[in-house]
Amino acid sequence: MNHLEITTDVVVVGAGHAGCEAALACARLGLKTVIFTVSVDSIALMPCNPNVGGSSKGHLVREIDALGGEMGKNIDQTFIQSKMLNGSKGPAVHSLRAQADKKDYSSRMRKTLENTPNLTIKQAEVTEIIVEDGVLTGVKTFSGAVYHCKACVLCTGTYLKARCIYGDISNYTGPNGLQAANHLTDSLKANGIEMFRFKTGTPARIDKRTIDFSKMEEQFGDKRVVPFSFSTDPDDVQIDQISCWLTYTNEKTHEIIRANLDRSPLYSGMIEGTGPRYCPSIEDKVVRFADKNRHQVFIEPEGRYTNEMYVGGMSSSLPEDVQIAMYRSVPGLEHAEIVRNAYAIEYDCINARQLKPTLEFKKIQGLFSGGQFNGSSGYEEAAAQGLAAGINAAMKTLGREQVVFDRSESYIGVLIDDLVTKDNKEPYRMMTSRSEYRLLLRQDNADQRLTPLGHQIGLIDEETYQNLLEKERQIAEETKRVEHLNIGANPAVQAFLEAHQSTPLKTGTTLGELIRRPELDYEMLGELDPQRPQLNRGVGEQVNINIKYDGYIKRQLKQVEHFKKLENKKIPEGIHYEEIHGLRIEAQQKLNQFRPISVGQASRISGVSPADISVLLIYMEQMNHASHR
Amino acid sequence: MNHLEITTDVVVVGAGHAGCEAALACARLGLKTVIFTVSVDSIALMPCNPNVGGSSKGHLVREIDALGGEMGKNIDQTFIQSKMLNGSKGPAVHSLRAQADKKDYSSRMRKTLENTPNLTIKQAEVTEIIVEDGVLTGVKTFSGAVYHCKACVLCTGTYLKARCIYGDISNYTGPNGLQAANHLTDSLKANGIEMFRFKTGTPARIDKRTIDFSKMEEQFGDKRVVPFSFSTDPDDVQIDQISCWLTYTNEKTHEIIRANLDRSPLYSGMIEGTGPRYCPSIEDKVVRFADKNRHQVFIEPEGRYTNEMYVGGMSSSLPEDVQIAMYRSVPGLEHAEIVRNAYAIEYDCINARQLKPTLEFKKIQGLFSGGQFNGSSGYEEAAAQGLAAGINAAMKTLGREQVVFDRSESYIGVLIDDLVTKDNKEPYRMMTSRSEYRLLLRQDNADQRLTPLGHQIGLIDEETYQNLLEKERQIAEETKRVEHLNIGANPAVQAFLEAHQSTPLKTGTTLGELIRRPELDYEMLGELDPQRPQLNRGVGEQVNINIKYDGYIKRQLKQVEHFKKLENKKIPEGIHYEEIHGLRIEAQQKLNQFRPISVGQASRISGVSPADISVLLIYMEQMNHASHR
Ligand SMILES: Cc1cc2nc3c(=O)[nH]c(=O)nc-3n(C[C@H](O)[C@H](O)[C@H](O)COP(=O)(O)OP(=O)(O)OC[C@H]3O[C@@H](n4cnc5c(N)ncnc54)[C@H](O)[C@@H]3O)c2cc1C
Ligand SMILES: Cc1cc2nc3c(=O)[nH]c(=O)nc-3n(C[C@H](O)[C@H](O)[C@H](O)COP(=O)(O)OP(=O)(O)OC[C@H]3O[C@@H](n4cnc5c(N)ncnc54)[C@H](O)[C@@H]3O)c2cc1C
Repeated sequence: MNHLEITTDVVVVGAGHAGCEAALACARLGLKTVIFTVSVDSIALMPCNPNVGGSSKGHLVREIDALGGEMGKNIDQTFIQSKMLNGSKGPAVHSLRAQADKKDYSSRMRKTLENTPNLTIKQAEVTEIIVEDGVLTGVKTFSGAVYHCKACVLCTGTYLKARCIYGDISNYTGPNGLQAANHLTDSLKANGIEMFRFKTGTPARIDKRTIDFSKMEEQFGDKRVVPFSFSTDPDDVQIDQISCWLTYTNEKTHEIIRANLDRSPLYSGMIEGTGPRYCPSIEDKVVRFADKNRHQVFIEPEGRYTNEMYVGGMSSSLPEDVQIAMYRSVPGLEHAEIVRNAYAIEYDCINARQLKPTLEFKKIQGLFSGGQFNGSSGYEEAAAQGLAAGINAAMKTLGREQVVFDRSESYIGVLIDDLVTKDNKEPYRMMTSRSEYRLLLRQDNADQRLTPLGHQIGLIDEETYQNLLEKERQIAEETKRVEHLNIGANPAVQAFLEAHQSTPLKTGTTLGELIRRPELDYEMLGELDPQRPQLNRGVGEQVNINIKYDGYIKRQLKQVEHFKKLENKKIPEGIHYEEIHGLRIEAQQKLNQFRPISVGQASRISGVSPADISVLLIYMEQMNHASHR
Repeated sequence: MNHLEITTDVVVVGAGHAGCEAALACARLGLKTVIFTVSVDSIALMPCNPNVGGSSKGHLVREIDALGGEMGKNIDQTFIQSKMLNGSKGPAVHSLRAQADKKDYSSRMRKTLENTPNLTIKQAEVTEIIVEDGVLTGVKTFSGAVYHCKACVLCTGTYLKARCIYGDISNYTGPNGLQAANHLTDSLKANGIEMFRFKTGTPARIDKRTIDFSKMEEQFGDKRVVPFSFSTDPDDVQIDQISCWLTYTNEKTHEIIRANLDRSPLYSGMIEGTGPRYCPSIEDKVVRFADKNRHQVFIEPEGRYTNEMYVGGMSSSLPEDVQIAMYRSVPGLEHAEIVRNAYAIEYDCINARQLKPTLEFKKIQGLFSGGQFNGSSGYEEAAAQGLAAGINAAMKTLGREQVVFDRSESYIGVLIDDLVTKDNKEPYRMMTSRSEYRLLLRQDNADQRLTPLGHQIGLIDEETYQNLLEKERQIAEETKRVEHLNIGANPAVQAFLEAHQSTPLKTGTTLGELIRRPELDYEMLGELDPQRPQLNRGVGEQVNINIKYDGYIKRQLKQVEHFKKLENKKIPEGIHYEEIHGLRIEAQQKLNQFRPISVGQASRISGVSPADISVLLIYMEQMNHASHR
């Protein structure tokens, strides 16, 4: 049989949140890119929660945006409600979260892909990767067509041998009535890739008309919405918002669940995949937190024009009859009609320790991967990895240096480092607590942290970059000005302080010192600062944070310095760990298995002790001396 | 295992064009209705051509609308281009055709369903029908849930055991990456239902950016768009339209196809299903019309905001490499990139002769069916049957009289009568030539033909009905006025006639006589008719047609009278054809097989001759006498 043969630069398998970012990055960097999807109609589909962002995930979106990715822009144009979470806490944990109109979100992303030069969308199932001598040379589709390429990014999400399950019911299909991709796994295995089987779940969708909202608490969006993207004009996101609703489970709910646990596929052993500890099903929560007598339930619209409502917090794989009883036990849901049942989905993914920190397979040159396929969960986690994998696939193809995102610079770095370095036995989810340098990796400064890199890569245009430089100049200058601006203990100042419940001044001070007071901030103090210059968007906020958290920030920067030192100590590719005298056997094995690229990475591998690292450092120094002699 | 048990009035299986109309009709008639779909995201999906209407299909849409259906309203709000076809021919063949924005079409229909009282949407696969003593009592879903109901309408379209095929590639899935429904067929067979296997096909979708439109002819919409729905204000449909494009195949295209015919699954025997003769694939056309050296190819946008373009006229199931070569041989498509391949789809459907003209199964009371499942093809054919089946499911549930659409009153009647009476060996498609009473069954008078019935059924509200009565009153009055309005042979009149290339008058005449002249019409003649009253929308057009085609219309009305006589001669349910002396064996068998409800229907069964009908009539008369004695 003749089959189609096509030559392109990069192939991206999957058009979910990871695949879209990967493909856009490659095409925008000028590479001919083909993106495959099981269905064009499901591009950037949100099969679970109808929102983007949230604690630490909002950080990821900001970082994606700062690097020139699409997710932030996409949600800014398609959200229906938005909130800055943790507003009352420190700036490290402020996180933006927006409800999406699912249909619009997906349509706009599809439109963006369709109109990106160099990018071709192809509805077809990829069934094989083609590898020659450890180098990826192409992929094959179900029809036998061969796409020769220089790099490939796998972003297959939850589709590989997908199986949907609830109660005693199981069906080999992808999410949402879409077909699964049943062939690629075998080809990956044949090429020596080790596969995992993970699972995740989703709650029911309920008909809005059957909900009694009078029994719930209305959840409004922010008065003044802050956009995700640094490029979005804040005035453009002040739209009519839609409310969400809060209600709670109760003892009756929990009893229904407990009485039917034996019918859960999780407990009957029917589900083999490992689920996410941090996105537990309601039955998990009831079992694990047996003493809690209620759990929050968020009722969230799936879009502006649909009546389907997402039941946040109650994902489940209990049988259908239990589901309906359980949902109806919740105040306001007494007469709920379920449009789509809750279900769990099991799928093939990889053990991400097979990847370099560039998201390239260690064993197969030119093969990259991102998203749920790498053992993560969440749209934002997927998009972040997709972008990183896409960037590196492009760098590889262009013969440019690979980009490693490091833990001290971004949550993307934390995410990837955790995935490729640590033992990951369940779908990985981002959390602010996973970062050692939280105060540095804020959502508000993602542009300062990453836009220079995005510019260097080629995804950020010159104008945006120059604007950032100007912003940084203004921040520095204004910080200096404010730190030196004297404030006298005059009656106007004292009256101001009194009005803001702040201790009156004994002697004169600087504006900087006043900003440091917890009850005051840069913006408020404008009243005492008539000479304040006109500043670009975001500058004031940075000045405020820089001054307020000065001490903490300096301390974290010190830690980062130490971290960087180890990170910069690259381990030679050909190192023989067996030959290192004094290295424990376990450490030898682990290091051989992971093949870390730096001493820093080596130090984070479980089973490698600080003593092992010392031995390794000494050995490397000796090697160095030897080679210089 | 416990499974969900739910009681409702009507169940509709499938949310394609047929299912949507069926479910809306039932719910609007006050019945608790559950509509099932494999995916809520694919409600009213158009898996093939991006348009509604066209020759004879436009008539169906108007009829659906006149009865209170949704299709006309839906396309009026989501079209991107519209044309009245055959404008230069007689009014019998005028047909409206509109390009749809596929996404919007589907979204708006979903919204309508979601907001219809009594209607519940349920994403689940129906796997069994439950029949007790020949009476349908419910359906079962994949999860084991039982929905008890009084009537069920099957509208499964192309999903039952669906298989997508091109070249040597075949995949057991539904259209567009959606899963198939693989279980219901067995349950239907187990209940004695005879199944067919049909197939249909679709062309590739091509990336607009890779098309050279300068080599094609631009196809514009009408200057003044006419809406589909009688309820749409014409001013609301005067939108910015999008162009389509016309190009042609050529000898090179045909050669590529001929050279690869042996690789077509149609010719290799891989496809068992029977395809539609009137929607042939391009390879069919090339084989069957070997002397034609070109075929039209219409390039049609799939929506306002997508770059996907539909390649009308070139559906195919040739292998992928042949497809690309073949499309690229067409002027303007030299560099075309295919987003979705062309493919054929095979699916299970029924032999519709198992249905009564009410679309109820003869063998299973309360089980109705409509759409592609009945062996038809086309969105409009599906919607028309869905509406009819839905209405009768509702009538049954409400204990009201069933509605039979007859051939003399509507294309819907022709469609259903053909399906349930004639041998149907391929997907049935509507055509104006199928109607005996074409001049009566016009698209412009669908409201007069069917709105009274829609009102009687309960789908047309009182106001709409009163408006129709008023319109009819005005038509009658105005026709009379115009027929009696004297026009003298004065200079103004002669000048008018001369200006319109019409023979001058010798003596005075009536305005009616002038309207009858082919080169003149009611509207033009307004100039000679200063007393013309202010009339409701559409009245003038009807007056014009009534007068112009008066003779033909009268003749057809006579034929209808004769037809009705036979149609009204109902055949008693328990008739024993074996006992009818003089009836040929073949006729006996056919009549026993079909069990027609009227002599009219009997007369259209192939294998039943006029002589057989005479014998039957005599027998029935004798029976009648006997029972009256
Ligand atoms: C039921 C369900 C519940 C979930 N619950 C949660 C949750 O509670 N919390 C959470 O954080 N996340 C949850 N998720 C995960 C979230 O959906 C994913 O993290 C996110 O969508 C992953 O994005 P992705 O791009 O990696 O993959 P996906 O969005 O799954 O996209 C995969 C893409 O790959 C394509 N594809 C796959 N294989 C092939 C192939 N062989 N050839 C061609 N195309 C292919 C598909 O068509 C699709 O376009 C859930 C997902 C599902 C399905
Ligand atoms: C590839 C392709 C090519 C086509 N080409 C042409 C053409 O050239 N010309 C033409 O006139 N027509 C063509 N058609 C046909 C046209 O699409 C149909 O006529 C029309 O869509 C039929 O409408 P329907 O409502 O009968 O079925 P569909 O639109 O197919 O809808 C069926 C519905 O039933 C649901 N369903 C099915 N089984 C189950 C179940 N067991 N449980 C729950 N839900 C179920 C599905 O989810 C879907 O909602 C083509 C169709 C396809 C797929």
